[in-house]
Amino acid sequence: MTQQRIVTLTTDFGLHDHYVGAMKGVILNVNPDVRLVDICHSVQPFDVLDGALTIAQTYRYFPSDTIHVGVVDPGVGSERRAILVTAEKHMFIAPDNGVLSMVYEREERISVRHITSEHYFLQPVSATFHGRDVFARVAGYLSKGMEVGKFGEEISDYVRFAAPKPRAINERMLRGVVLKVDKFGNIITNITPQDAAALFGSQTPPFKLMVGSTEITRMSRSYSEGAPGEPFAIVGSMGFLEVAVNRGSAAQTLSAQKGTEVGLILEQALGTAG
Amino acid sequence: MTQQRIVTLTTDFGLHDHYVGAMKGVILNVNPDVRLVDICHSVQPFDVLDGALTIAQTYRYFPSDTIHVGVVDPGVGSERRAILVTAEKHMFIAPDNGVLSMVYEREERISVRHITSEHYFLQPVSATFHGRDVFARVAGYLSKGMEVGKFGEEISDYVRFAAPKPRAINERMLRGVVLKVDKFGNIITNITPQDAAALFGSQTPPFKLMVGSTEITRMSRSYSEGAPGEPFAIVGSMGFLEVAVNRGSAAQTLSAQKGTEVGLILEQALGTAG
Amino acid sequence: MTQQRIVTLTTDFGLHDHYVGAMKGVILNVNPDVRLVDICHSVQPFDVLDGALTIAQTYRYFPSDTIHVGVVDPGVGSERRAILVTAEKHMFIAPDNGVLSMVYEREERISVRHITSEHYFLQPVSATFHGRDVFARVAGYLSKGMEVGKFGEEISDYVRFAAPKPRAINERMLRGVVLKVDKFGNIITNITPQDAAALFGSQTPPFKLMVGSTEITRMSRSYSEGAPGEPFAIVGSMGFLEVAVNRGSAAQTLSAQKGTEVGLILEQALGTAG
Repeated sequence: MTQQRIVTLTTDFGLHDHYVGAMKGVILNVNPDVRLVDICHSVQPFDVLDGALTIAQTYRYFPSDTIHVGVVDPGVGSERRAILVTAEKHMFIAPDNGVLSMVYEREERISVRHITSEHYFLQPVSATFHGRDVFARVAGYLSKGMEVGKFGEEISDYVRFAAPKPRAINERMLRGVVLKVDKFGNIITNITPQDAAALFGSQTPPFKLMVGSTEITRMSRSYSEGAPGEPFAIVGSMGFLEVAVNRGSAAQTLSAQKGTEVGLILEQALGTAG
Repeated sequence: MTQQRIVTLTTDFGLHDHYVGAMKGVILNVNPDVRLVDICHSVQPFDVLDGALTIAQTYRYFPSDTIHVGVVDPGVGSERRAILVTAEKHMFIAPDNGVLSMVYEREERISVRHITSEHYFLQPVSATFHGRDVFARVAGYLSKGMEVGKFGEEISDYVRFAAPKPRAINERMLRGVVLKVDKFGNIITNITPQDAAALFGSQTPPFKLMVGSTEITRMSRSYSEGAPGEPFAIVGSMGFLEVAVNRGSAAQTLSAQKGTEVGLILEQALGTAG
Repeated sequence: MTQQRIVTLTTDFGLHDHYVGAMKGVILNVNPDVRLVDICHSVQPFDVLDGALTIAQTYRYFPSDTIHVGVVDPGVGSERRAILVTAEKHMFIAPDNGVLSMVYEREERISVRHITSEHYFLQPVSATFHGRDVFARVAGYLSKGMEVGKFGEEISDYVRFAAPKPRAINERMLRGVVLKVDKFGNIITNITPQDAAALFGSQTPPFKLMVGSTEITRMSRSYSEGAPGEPFAIVGSMGFLEVAVNRGSAAQTLSAQKGTEVGLILEQALGTAG
């Protein structure tokens, strides 16, 4: 294990303040050899689901032994715990508020520890900025190869939420929801191949995807196959069914946003994942 | 002293243009082993006080020998000087316009040099982008271990401004100002424990904090202790008295912004710092 | 050639999603020793010219052997090719859509290869995120010192567009266009010393620069030489004629934006570059 461990940062601190910079300083002060990687600091404020999505969509691409720090922490200073999670190849440091739920979903074997080793914290610990005083400090020590057992005891009652899943209305109908709208205005639903295998086959069967009052009936393979302003369905890089517009914003075109309901109707049975 | 020196960057260049990228290239071209750390590039444009706050709130967390480059530089190309500041543990490169004022306040021993060694600059030096042509270049050479004396002579008439301090109206009343609003909408005032020790004790005495026409009478220990929409006072991680709303924007709730006046009234004497 | 190669990233992915983070993970997974440098992720969405400008304004400042990854890719998933470009000192990985046009303009000797070595791609390759599945992967392998010939054959019919040039109306008049507006509101035109040498001499001759209905007749050497609200002309750090306002936004003052036409009128002949 090298000292040049990678530490990734995902927060809702934004880029207009000093918060992220202070975290970086604290980590480097403990371990100047660490390699810091910014994932995203523009998670929607206080939005634990958005943070969970961001972490889940990135961590697996990193090398083994990467330490992922995720700070979306509306409960900072309250009784919520700080946790250190070890999965098969990666480690995570975060508040125990569900922001790692999608990691728990994807990883077979995890161990979750309640971080209680206050001597590793920056003293005095503020009640308002654990990103700096707790999470960054612990990440620094962990990146130096310190044993996970030194940070606290294993727990099993850690907080996890179920990401919203689509609901089958009948054999041919599904009701889903918009998980997020990305920077390009692509509408990312929570519908996956597991929910409607028939739709995701090599030949797309006839279907209707309802977003608000708009009915989408065309599936495209790439974002560039579409007339200007025409919304179409597409299997996105996150593994979800998306709605997009070629060089335009589907969210704007369809007045959709996070939380908007979507309906999927097939002429045949939805099917189940192989 | 290692070659892998850390160089931090704080600017008002924003993230939409190539300016920060050009600075990074210039630094790495002089010293490819340097470790670049972005602090913040969204300092309010031309706002030297905002830059000073950002630098002051981050530099001390970094390891010794870190070089901090701060470019908020409305006077670029004019007669304002470029300076190199050595403090006990850190070094700073910036325009001489007061952007390091809060460093001067916090550091006991500093030496300030006027950077005049034009042979270290990128030639021809533009009149519009010293971040690239002067500050980045000097940071590169400094990070290689070059002696500070080579960059120019010490000066004593460097520019410093006093950060706005609260004004005592009488023994029980203080008038302060909003220093900044952060990304979450937290209102950061300029009132510190030194200004009103009585308020910051272990037991909060009765108080009124006036922001516009709103009277705040509750102190909270953490951001999460508050009813939706209810503004409360809190000692923030920057060491200032803040006004916050649990999972909401206090600035929006109270129509406050940078420069808004605030008033603090205690039933007892304000007290002085221990 | 060291393993610690620098890889720069320029994209239009923005900072609100996981896209950039996923790319970084993929690169580091192939080569954990790489040094990642964010140039800019806020290129205007789908705007290949804006991407070309950003890359052209930064790459030359970096050390030799730097690998520049530029992903502004409205045609992702279509038949557009992925390319690997070798110039005298730098390498580039990008979609073949013209985003490297200004590199081609500036570099004397380049070789352009069509990246076809699918075994270096992340499998299965999505049709929507080649930044992650193709460009990042190839950058990772290239940064390990892999020979460029392994990625594909040389091509000569790569896509290049001519950056918009000013048009001489007569000996004393030029019609140009706004290339971009930067974060400060500076208006960057496409007029260079080559187009109007007489204007850029040591003594500025009388001139009129028309932006909309505003007539600008003063040339300033630095941004700080101007009365509040007064727009003036200035030779900017990108090498173009700009219009600026001291501590203000020229674009707002003049209601100008990318694509706005500008006219330059001299009393004498425009002249040609030395």
